[in-house]
Amino acid sequence: MKIEILRKKLKIIFKKYKLSSAHSKICTEAIINAELVGAHSHGLSRVKMYCDRISKKIINPKPKIKIKKISQSVSHIDANNSIGFVAADLGIKIAIKHAQKTGIGMVAIKGSGHYGLSGYYAEQAVKKNLITMIYTNAPPAVAPHGALKSLFGTNPICFGTPTGTEIPFILDTSISLINRGKIRVAARNNQKIPEGVALDNFGKPTIDAKKALKGVQLPIAGFRGSGLAWMVDILSGVITGGNHAGRVKDPFDDFSGPQNIGHLFITFKANLFQKNYNQRIKDNIYTIKKLPKIKGVKEIMYPGQNKFYRYKNNLKKEISISNIIKKDLETLIS
Amino acid sequence: MKIEILRKKLKIIFKKYKLSSAHSKICTEAIINAELVGAHSHGLSRVKMYCDRISKKIINPKPKIKIKKISQSVSHIDANNSIGFVAADLGIKIAIKHAQKTGIGMVAIKGSGHYGLSGYYAEQAVKKNLITMIYTNAPPAVAPHGALKSLFGTNPICFGTPTGTEIPFILDTSISLINRGKIRVAARNNQKIPEGVALDNFGKPTIDAKKALKGVQLPIAGFRGSGLAWMVDILSGVITGGNHAGRVKDPFDDFSGPQNIGHLFITFKANLFQKNYNQRIKDNIYTIKKLPKIKGVKEIMYPGQNKFYRYKNNLKKEISISNIIKKDLETLIS
Repeated sequence: MKIEILRKKLKIIFKKYKLSSAHSKICTEAIINAELVGAHSHGLSRVKMYCDRISKKIINPKPKIKIKKISQSVSHIDANNSIGFVAADLGIKIAIKHAQKTGIGMVAIKGSGHYGLSGYYAEQAVKKNLITMIYTNAPPAVAPHGALKSLFGTNPICFGTPTGTEIPFILDTSISLINRGKIRVAARNNQKIPEGVALDNFGKPTIDAKKALKGVQLPIAGFRGSGLAWMVDILSGVITGGNHAGRVKDPFDDFSGPQNIGHLFITFKANLFQKNYNQRIKDNIYTIKKLPKIKGVKEIMYPGQNKFYRYKNNLKKEISISNIIKKDLETLIS
Repeated sequence: MKIEILRKKLKIIFKKYKLSSAHSKICTEAIINAELVGAHSHGLSRVKMYCDRISKKIINPKPKIKIKKISQSVSHIDANNSIGFVAADLGIKIAIKHAQKTGIGMVAIKGSGHYGLSGYYAEQAVKKNLITMIYTNAPPAVAPHGALKSLFGTNPICFGTPTGTEIPFILDTSISLINRGKIRVAARNNQKIPEGVALDNFGKPTIDAKKALKGVQLPIAGFRGSGLAWMVDILSGVITGGNHAGRVKDPFDDFSGPQNIGHLFITFKANLFQKNYNQRIKDNIYTIKKLPKIKGVKEIMYPGQNKFYRYKNNLKKEISISNIIKKDLETLIS
């Protein structure tokens, strides 16, 4: 489908589901961006879910968002169960303003929902020559180290910085070794999953996808990854007033109430301490790219580089949409 | 050796090497703390190295430290090649003051050196009911994803928060899969190293310690860990004015100049957004600890808990010191 046509369709859908024009646009752009960077699990595949949650009144299409300014640099947002995109868009914009005014900004959000890709918001700050750190929690997917039950979400750690070029450095990494979706697909096709990414119901390592589905997924790097996931749960859930400790509901499966996800945005001027930051980061990246490479590696890539190329490339093409999702969209629009 | 006797000896040594009384005390306490928490690689084993670097005039025992206040919340420190402990002690103290005054604090340091354990500084902020994030870079130990040469340091990520109890939550995790020291010991004893932690000189995975020493160590979680290490290099080296991109010298092996390590301290009030933070974090930890456990696991521990127990336990005992280090200390003091 042509991007422009998809854009129109999405806006119509969101407006039909009672979002304002401005909010419909925010959601549409975030979803199209996810498709363009190749993160399909964060794009069109979620539109029906968002609309279903609006229908069940657990996403509020007309939220009364409360912004509390705590200082010149710090704000808190109660998103009133808005769709996550709207809360996050507001959050990063305020964090950007704070940093531009005082050098540093921090915005905590509660009462939000799944907001798509952290990197999408990071890019907005980086375009303003800011460095940013973004945290959000998510429904249970990963077991804490030593536990036999999932509790942490895939809890991404996101960091962005300008690079002195048009391609931003955007690290946006989950702390789980494998996506739950991948395990589901493997189970359906009777395929094995890689060693060391999941435990069975008894806590034993398994490569049997069906057993893994009944067991737990493991964090990256054992206790280290578990600690990082715990950190993200605290930064995005505990401090903000959002849900935490495994209480964020799965948006696809659990319609018993709002998600109440929390987000944290930290921003600061890239040249806060060194005027020649752009020169320094260019030198950093150049030096690392010049290293001798492992056989078969053409270029040492920095985080975000591949995504940027995919985006640029996909921008020239139509967005390919599966028949299931096409049908979803037609149903939603009609 | 009794702690009190060791304390006296260390102060005498540092004073002999031209540090002021106040600075000698700071270094002594940090080193004793490292021994008490069981991080011997960051304790007494480094005293001779620090003194050697002072003798060779690449650590400045009488630094003229410049503090530049950028805003009510932000400061920059040029540590003038002080011993790392002194720079970091000043940095965290200023970051604490900023957060107490404005809610949030950020201090960047350049011209510093190895400062011991990040967690030691995190604890100081946590005791004041602040949340803290601390970053520092280190000499090359880990290869960037795709590279055949070490460049990133073990670049720890440190996060601390009050818990509403006397045991703070202190995550202080390196991003390398294995310590270089462990590989050295394995090579000496003709032992194998675990699978997947290192590559040989040709970029092939190896469990041969000697081959690994000639090759590179791998970061946790492949490209994810490589990205996190890169993030830490930017946060602590590029933005601060410190060395970065592999230019931090190994303090034991390279006496060709100062290390010029950079550090970054971020602090904010734990109850900045939610007045009942202590209650919320207690609930978070309690909920996670209650999860069903893997067979053989008695308790799900949060980061810092084990270290705290070790500290409390070791505080009652004498500090055991190897003969080599005892001899070092005697030589330094005489």
